[in-house]
Amino acid sequence: MQFQTIEWSAGRIRILDQTRLPEETIYLEIGDVEDLAEAIRNLRIRGAPAIGVASAFGAVLAAQRSSATESLVLIKEVREAIVLLSATRPTAVNLFWALKRMEKVLDSSIDAPVVQIRERLLLEASTILEEDRSVCKKIGQNGAVLLPEQSTILTHCNAGALATAGQGTALSVLYEAVEMGKKIKIYADETRPLLQGARLTAWELKQAGLDVTVTCDSAAGMLMNMKRIDCVLVGADRIAANGDAANKIGTYGLAVLAKHHRIPFYIAAPVSTFDLSIGSGSKIPIEERLREEISFGFGKRTVPADVQVFNPAFDVTPHSLITAFITERGVFYPPFKTTFKRLGLH
Amino acid sequence: MQFQTIEWSAGRIRILDQTRLPEETIYLEIGDVEDLAEAIRNLRIRGAPAIGVASAFGAVLAAQRSSATESLVLIKEVREAIVLLSATRPTAVNLFWALKRMEKVLDSSIDAPVVQIRERLLLEASTILEEDRSVCKKIGQNGAVLLPEQSTILTHCNAGALATAGQGTALSVLYEAVEMGKKIKIYADETRPLLQGARLTAWELKQAGLDVTVTCDSAAGMLMNMKRIDCVLVGADRIAANGDAANKIGTYGLAVLAKHHRIPFYIAAPVSTFDLSIGSGSKIPIEERLREEISFGFGKRTVPADVQVFNPAFDVTPHSLITAFITERGVFYPPFKTTFKRLGLH
Repeated sequence: MQFQTIEWSAGRIRILDQTRLPEETIYLEIGDVEDLAEAIRNLRIRGAPAIGVASAFGAVLAAQRSSATESLVLIKEVREAIVLLSATRPTAVNLFWALKRMEKVLDSSIDAPVVQIRERLLLEASTILEEDRSVCKKIGQNGAVLLPEQSTILTHCNAGALATAGQGTALSVLYEAVEMGKKIKIYADETRPLLQGARLTAWELKQAGLDVTVTCDSAAGMLMNMKRIDCVLVGADRIAANGDAANKIGTYGLAVLAKHHRIPFYIAAPVSTFDLSIGSGSKIPIEERLREEISFGFGKRTVPADVQVFNPAFDVTPHSLITAFITERGVFYPPFKTTFKRLGLH
Repeated sequence: MQFQTIEWSAGRIRILDQTRLPEETIYLEIGDVEDLAEAIRNLRIRGAPAIGVASAFGAVLAAQRSSATESLVLIKEVREAIVLLSATRPTAVNLFWALKRMEKVLDSSIDAPVVQIRERLLLEASTILEEDRSVCKKIGQNGAVLLPEQSTILTHCNAGALATAGQGTALSVLYEAVEMGKKIKIYADETRPLLQGARLTAWELKQAGLDVTVTCDSAAGMLMNMKRIDCVLVGADRIAANGDAANKIGTYGLAVLAKHHRIPFYIAAPVSTFDLSIGSGSKIPIEERLREEISFGFGKRTVPADVQVFNPAFDVTPHSLITAFITERGVFYPPFKTTFKRLGLH
């Protein structure tokens, strides 16, 4: 990739500000937890795996900025930062998964000196980031073999390098397929309201030299009916024990359309996105975001001021509409409860 | 209605400029055919019935602006205007239907003096406008009885007063249902790329005091899955002899979603929208519009400059997904070929 979505650099978190793409490529150097929470809330950094990595480094920032000289004081301050970061976004489970790993470091460091606690936190966050890179690569390799030699893929939102510390989840599959010599064409839904498909997926795929076309979300049905789409491939923000999966609003509609047209519907996600504590998708908390994202998204009013707006950020796709999950541990087919168990998820 | 979408006033066509809504309520006085063609192409006036009425008055404008003193010269000039207006938008058949009515006036006026030709054209255009008003009302009355006493309706694009000279087609059904005392709630898809749902339907329904909520097009599936939608109700731009119907891009996807959720899917349209010369939807010409509508829609770049864009303005919903057509002559149920014949459409 010709860009770095997130990295740790000289005691700060350096992120590519995704709210400025595709017009401007601006990196932010984030030095404290409040600024990081703002960046996550406002989607300067977004994508389930990327906000996991970011939040882990948020715990590191809290530890490094602290003037505490006693371990218990330091641990208390980092725990407060973790609480703050946990409240930024409710749906993607990777955020909580990463913060839990940082908490475990704290749990096992009560007797360690402050310098060592800081070191251990930095090591854990760096490990999470490095793991994400290799996980992305493996997801791509596991998924690429599923695609026909010549295929046209429809994707929604951005499950790419911009959503991870590595080369993405769904888009990693495409990068690896191209690497294998397959001829891949991509339709990217623009993904209202925040246009992650038009702004981010199109930018990222174009940077990598792939053949990408942007359409309105509402054109997906027509494209499938024209037999232009060979499969749908998206990421996920949280996957329940039965295989129900939360992802960007509109994903459920695509899954219904794919079923109607007998087109495979794949979800590519790391194992950290599976939340086996949740039996089904109905228990996944769905974030509702501000009305202005829809009514005033382009710097111009597009909905009358006194009209109500419904703006859920995610929807849930029931497992029955999902052809397979592509993970770093392999491809999971239905019945998911059984295959999840066999592949060591339970 | 507290506004006039289109009217004839002192020798000019007066239209509400729909590109300025909801921010500004600005009326344009259109005095020549070129300006009218621009207004239709750029959707200052839009909606299948409304562009039919507008194009009819375009023929009147051509006749009134002409300095011809000989009938054949005048008729030639009006025919040229009709050719120009025919080329503005290809999908909605009402445009061609209205212009054909104006041509018939010309055909039967070869021996008439120029003053009389001008009068006859004005009379025909005024008749088309008045007919549209009463047709809209009847569509509303015929459809309103289909809605449950308490119901929530999903609509797409704008098939309202802003799309006709009267009180609309799909939205007329809602106005009449409310008039009958039914409790109606409406979800309006924002309708990318030009946001006719967010900008126009929301504005119009709010003006009329109805309960309307705007959502992204991609939230329709989630709303249906939450059992919040009792039926889908939209307009149409052209309906083929077998019942396949072209309407705003995204309509087809809604029809598939409605079928999956066993929700009725209604199309409300005047008889002038039926094109029985076309056997099936595959023959309906689908307008593709400029990439900028998606990539630069609201004064801000949202797609990288060098990325391809696919921007069809319409899609076709196959008759098998349509529960019924609501027209001024009654409600048509499948099998449509039979019912169209019985109701005098063939």
